[in-house]
Amino acid sequence: MAEQKEPSFEHRVPEGDNRLRQVCTDCGFIAYENPKVVVGAVVTLGDKILLCRRAIQPRKGYWTLPAGFMELHESAETGAAREAFEEANARIEIDGLLAAYTIPRLSQVQLIYRAHLIDPQISAGTESLEVGLFDYVDIPWDELAFPSVRWALTQFNDVRDRKTFPAFTNPPGESGDH
Amino acid sequence: MAEQKEPSFEHRVPEGDNRLRQVCTDCGFIAYENPKVVVGAVVTLGDKILLCRRAIQPRKGYWTLPAGFMELHESAETGAAREAFEEANARIEIDGLLAAYTIPRLSQVQLIYRAHLIDPQISAGTESLEVGLFDYVDIPWDELAFPSVRWALTQFNDVRDRKTFPAFTNPPGESGDH
Repeated sequence: MAEQKEPSFEHRVPEGDNRLRQVCTDCGFIAYENPKVVVGAVVTLGDKILLCRRAIQPRKGYWTLPAGFMELHESAETGAAREAFEEANARIEIDGLLAAYTIPRLSQVQLIYRAHLIDPQISAGTESLEVGLFDYVDIPWDELAFPSVRWALTQFNDVRDRKTFPAFTNPPGESGDH
Repeated sequence: MAEQKEPSFEHRVPEGDNRLRQVCTDCGFIAYENPKVVVGAVVTLGDKILLCRRAIQPRKGYWTLPAGFMELHESAETGAAREAFEEANARIEIDGLLAAYTIPRLSQVQLIYRAHLIDPQISAGTESLEVGLFDYVDIPWDELAFPSVRWALTQFNDVRDRKTFPAFTNPPGESGDH
């Protein structure tokens, strides 16, 4: 392979556009930056809720819902089920959309579903230190990885006895920053 | 400015990854490709629904909801309101999430809100040939730009008299391909 230079991008408005973009100074390639989609789920087995303790940064060692970046050419629901399998070896069925959050600082959209385990066997995937099934009152609230994990768990609990409910969004005034 | 070469990318699995990515053969820059987020709204004024006739490809000349790609550092709701303003000079208020669709072929997530005009004045923005307010029965069903426009309009109509409702997803068996 030929010796490679380091990537060299500048921040400018391309011709015919009206916003600053990342443009390669060597070849003019425009690296459009778009918000990213995180898909995940509040997964239950009876009254218990599945949580994963993160083996990777950011927030390594903290507890989170199974969730991650949606990949190309999958549906959001398929992506949420894939993440549950990758992080907790959990086989789940999606019941419905719990919430659509936005974290503007991170340019992230989070689609969090309500789901249930279709097989009680779970175990830590490579991105998890451990996984567990928690009663709501036993959730380690002080050791949750991200604000949106707390939002999803509390909103889930508000409607856990309802078959259908409107999808939640960010709690009032909350932007997802720590 | 120095003379620029054309961008030159190859499709390979970068070190430490497990998926094919677009990698620049000159400098090694990895152009991660992620699903893109479209935000839009079914916007009403009384019983009438706002539609825009597209001035741009794809589907130029066909009718659509005000919608477009979410930008960095905005919330999904703010993006939907921005698109209504850009495409129809429409000032809207978001009432709630109508639907979260996925179009896997296009790797697109579409977040479509229910909203209402807060000012009856509308006019075509630069990406619209014309804009109009339609009674449901007068919607030009044979001239809609995309399958998801039809989904959103029919699902909207199913719950138009309800204050709250669960968010919709793709209709059963529909992937959004024409």
